[in-house]
Amino acid sequence: MNLGRVRGSVVATVKDPGMVGMRLLLVQPLDTNRQDTGSCVVAADAVLQAGPGDLVYFVASREAAEAMEPRFVPVDHAIVGIVDALEVHP
Amino acid sequence: MNLGRVRGSVVATVKDPGMVGMRLLLVQPLDTNRQDTGSCVVAADAVLQAGPGDLVYFVASREAAEAMEPRFVPVDHAIVGIVDALEVHP
Amino acid sequence: MNLGRVRGSVVATVKDPGMVGMRLLLVQPLDTNRQDTGSCVVAADAVLQAGPGDLVYFVASREAAEAMEPRFVPVDHAIVGIVDALEVHP
Amino acid sequence: MNLGRVRGSVVATVKDPGMVGMRLLLVQPLDTNRQDTGSCVVAADAVLQAGPGDLVYFVASREAAEAMEPRFVPVDHAIVGIVDALEVHP
Amino acid sequence: MNLGRVRGSVVATVKDPGMVGMRLLLVQPLDTNRQDTGSCVVAADAVLQAGPGDLVYFVASREAAEAMEPRFVPVDHAIVGIVDALEVHP
Repeated sequence: MNLGRVRGSVVATVKDPGMVGMRLLLVQPLDTNRQDTGSCVVAADAVLQAGPGDLVYFVASREAAEAMEPRFVPVDHAIVGIVDALEVHP
Repeated sequence: MNLGRVRGSVVATVKDPGMVGMRLLLVQPLDTNRQDTGSCVVAADAVLQAGPGDLVYFVASREAAEAMEPRFVPVDHAIVGIVDALEVHP
Repeated sequence: MNLGRVRGSVVATVKDPGMVGMRLLLVQPLDTNRQDTGSCVVAADAVLQAGPGDLVYFVASREAAEAMEPRFVPVDHAIVGIVDALEVHP
Repeated sequence: MNLGRVRGSVVATVKDPGMVGMRLLLVQPLDTNRQDTGSCVVAADAVLQAGPGDLVYFVASREAAEAMEPRFVPVDHAIVGIVDALEVHP
Repeated sequence: MNLGRVRGSVVATVKDPGMVGMRLLLVQPLDTNRQDTGSCVVAADAVLQAGPGDLVYFVASREAAEAMEPRFVPVDHAIVGIVDALEVHP
């Protein structure tokens, strides 16, 4: 999984039927020092309560769909946890 | 999923049988500020109505095939939504 | 899928049994302006007629195996189309 | 698989039900010379005994879930070995 | 698949049960001109006879496990061929 911060959301009328009712959030990936790295991704919110500013971890690739209900949806990024704390041993 | 903008289309006579009749579009990936990033990909149009200039989000990897009918096709990028609006909280 | 140009081929005697008889080509990925980008990949030729110099599109990740017959082979890049024309709307 | 070093752990209350009880560690990917490269990932600890400072190898993509019990979990990075020694022939 | 050169091997006592008895090699990915590019990966040796210095091609992502026996193992990189010759048409 990767760390990211929720930056906003995506509104789409024309979309795959498997995505109707799914919350789609803009997530900025973060590096080890929690600085922005790379481009925002559009992730489904599998925990249903992530919001702007939250530090989250998201799963990518085929496993993202495992977090959704039902599972056979064209989703390749999903938020699967909201981070309370990071314990770092440098 | 990633944000992208439709830039054109691909014409191919010799192709995998599973791709006959499929619309293949050139999509330029975009970064957080909607600037071009990386190289264009060739994506199947799963929503069937994306056109040049549209801001879309596309799914990559194995899940792209989930957006197609039938599903067992060699597709690893598919457009699954046309963006109406992005709500960004910087 | 990604755009690429066929640059050559690979000869291997010792290989996975699932790859015997498979044509393996060296493919150079191309960017939006059809310039070389990144490193050559070794792709199976699923259309069976790609040759040196051809502009092709190839599928990566797990879906590449979907283009092969039989399907359960350790292949993660496959050429699935030869490009006749690109229509680009800049 | 990739080489990495365990840097810490992640605490999350709100998470996917499939992740309850799973140890999630922060892993810094390493390059050929064992220097940091890229950003930390959040990996499940499939060997159940990796700790801060350990040199490990982790599996990414869909295969990471194969290392977990049960297997149908939204995990895309898992630690599957702790390195005792690297034999390098430069 | 990608081209690489075998650089060494990995010794691990604590590892996933599915990896017991599997040869794990350090492989340096190569670019089009056979120069080092990116970081070494840890790949399972599916051809069972790759050794230090060999020019090989390896498969990544979920398809790597297809090269192994049995198949349900947490492996995402596997060597599936030893290169005898590359025919390059520049």
